[in-house]
Amino acid sequence: MTRTADGKSRVRKPVLVHDPTLRDGHHAVRHSLGPDQLRSYASAADAAGVPVVEVGHGNGLGASSLQAGRARLGDGEMLSVVREALQNSRMGVFMIPGWGTVRDLRNAIAHDVDLVRIGTHCTEGDLAERYLGFLRDAGVEAHGVLLMSHMATPGQLAEECARLVAYGATGVGILDSSGHFLPADVTERVGAIRRAVDVPVMFHGHNNLGMAVANSVAAVEAGADIVDACARGFGAGAGNTQLEVLVPVLERMGFATGIDLYGLLDAADIAGRELMPAPPSIDSVGVVSGLSGVFSGFKNRVLDVSLREGVDPRDVFFELGERQAVAGQEDLIVDVALALRDGAGGSRAAAGEPRSSGQV
Amino acid sequence: MTRTADGKSRVRKPVLVHDPTLRDGHHAVRHSLGPDQLRSYASAADAAGVPVVEVGHGNGLGASSLQAGRARLGDGEMLSVVREALQNSRMGVFMIPGWGTVRDLRNAIAHDVDLVRIGTHCTEGDLAERYLGFLRDAGVEAHGVLLMSHMATPGQLAEECARLVAYGATGVGILDSSGHFLPADVTERVGAIRRAVDVPVMFHGHNNLGMAVANSVAAVEAGADIVDACARGFGAGAGNTQLEVLVPVLERMGFATGIDLYGLLDAADIAGRELMPAPPSIDSVGVVSGLSGVFSGFKNRVLDVSLREGVDPRDVFFELGERQAVAGQEDLIVDVALALRDGAGGSRAAAGEPRSSGQV
Repeated sequence: MTRTADGKSRVRKPVLVHDPTLRDGHHAVRHSLGPDQLRSYASAADAAGVPVVEVGHGNGLGASSLQAGRARLGDGEMLSVVREALQNSRMGVFMIPGWGTVRDLRNAIAHDVDLVRIGTHCTEGDLAERYLGFLRDAGVEAHGVLLMSHMATPGQLAEECARLVAYGATGVGILDSSGHFLPADVTERVGAIRRAVDVPVMFHGHNNLGMAVANSVAAVEAGADIVDACARGFGAGAGNTQLEVLVPVLERMGFATGIDLYGLLDAADIAGRELMPAPPSIDSVGVVSGLSGVFSGFKNRVLDVSLREGVDPRDVFFELGERQAVAGQEDLIVDVALALRDGAGGSRAAAGEPRSSGQV
Repeated sequence: MTRTADGKSRVRKPVLVHDPTLRDGHHAVRHSLGPDQLRSYASAADAAGVPVVEVGHGNGLGASSLQAGRARLGDGEMLSVVREALQNSRMGVFMIPGWGTVRDLRNAIAHDVDLVRIGTHCTEGDLAERYLGFLRDAGVEAHGVLLMSHMATPGQLAEECARLVAYGATGVGILDSSGHFLPADVTERVGAIRRAVDVPVMFHGHNNLGMAVANSVAAVEAGADIVDACARGFGAGAGNTQLEVLVPVLERMGFATGIDLYGLLDAADIAGRELMPAPPSIDSVGVVSGLSGVFSGFKNRVLDVSLREGVDPRDVFFELGERQAVAGQEDLIVDVALALRDGAGGSRAAAGEPRSSGQV
């Protein structure tokens, strides 16, 4: 079996692996990575031949704040350290309009960023127009990516991506922000996007349902050219697609990443030792947020409010999912908890019966 | 999306989930679980409606020994505690001929075991004949399962399973002992077995390549009726298929498990708190043992010998994979390490060049 993946196996197509370990991983450590940690991991990823190393606050450029959490380092400091550590890998940043502004983009450009991703909620790509236009005029490669993509249909996502290309994006794609997708869901959505645009398509997975690697493979088979993955899965909640697992799996299936396996494993060992107290794992809240399609960032607030109101936090998650709650709507948590407490929170929860898996 | 899995979705077929948390998980804690831990988890799994709870030393009946590790409790003690804790779930045990004997089977029967699995290397099903016959004559349900199943072709596995049925097995299946399979590998093998026998077919996955859940789903779609999964993935090396993740994923896809989700999450929380220091994760050795198809139980010995001989433990794993090493052949580790040290360990390793993922 191992032979099926050795150097002699045919190459189906090259896949570009994009590594947001130093950006998405920041969510797991309250944006606390310091210069030595950034330098150490970035150098190792560079040595392994990882094509793109993305760095920044978990929510991207300009997001360090009381609401999103203050980062230990400013954007400029993070970019300087990583820029210096990279010999061959390209340096990427992420920005969500509202958290970040044109001023933050200018700052990133001043630090020689190679690739900027502008992320918006899956149905609000128009918010990226101004920034994609600015970056196109500035001559910087810019991709448009859609968050919480399980909340839109394949057709809507394809339309939205076509719009992002019209705004100037030279790459587009989707993030499974709450780890809700199963492989067939990814195949359908990435396939629809692939047919709608003629630029590289990306997919970014989370592991809430244990499908991050399988979903990323499904994305590549459906036409994705770029897949995101983080060392040890370092990322928000249940974690991201595990980089050092995805790469050899893709290679074994005949997709060329150009990454050196041993170098990658060394980088992952450094990440495991130096960046995180423990690798992400799928706890019960992770499972429920994946099933309900609710951003796992709601976790602590949901647990606090549920305890106070004496309701089951799992019911709160499922009800938030029914109400299509998105980041920024944390106030909905209290409404939902009160409604559940008063027995008005949707028949299933109100019935107070144990929820069978079949009802999820 | 959540709605696609609600109670109203059609049921494709029932799937029996078999839970070896208290057996395979024992590998992760040197067979040290005590009565309170067994009782606490078994009661919670029973309350959630988990159909089969398997208990015992990691290597099964009779395996407690210096070589395989001494268990804190004897087989009889473990079976008594779990038997008492189960109201509705059936109690299962596992036995590998050589570790266990007919005497151990008599002991399990005396403790009212409901289901016995006899496990052999994938090409040595004949070693199960005597025990399957004994159990059939004793009127105890007995299944025959094949270990390290990536080392045999789909055709060989199908033949071996047909043989197990002829010996008296009322259920057969395969274990991906080293976590080497990708979903297409599972589809091919389970499909071949499904076509060769008319008894229930089982699949047991490990998560070395992040595919345990996806592989288990592939098995069910290829005709498997029984899938193994452990709370928090508690098991050897990179861990098993995660029970509380697999169940809602199967339900969402329309496969009925009859298990209560909240009860299952509660059981998983108990397992996370009371059975393990930390949930299993995929470390670099886990990735390499999955890719090389070598039993992860070799890990410590490989690391020790590699350090002593100054060779890369990853090269040792890949070379052991080339030589098709199986459990019991730990002596091969030294031969391989010495060969690598002396530059005779296969061209790739001897070349001393960094191995690119494409060569794995």
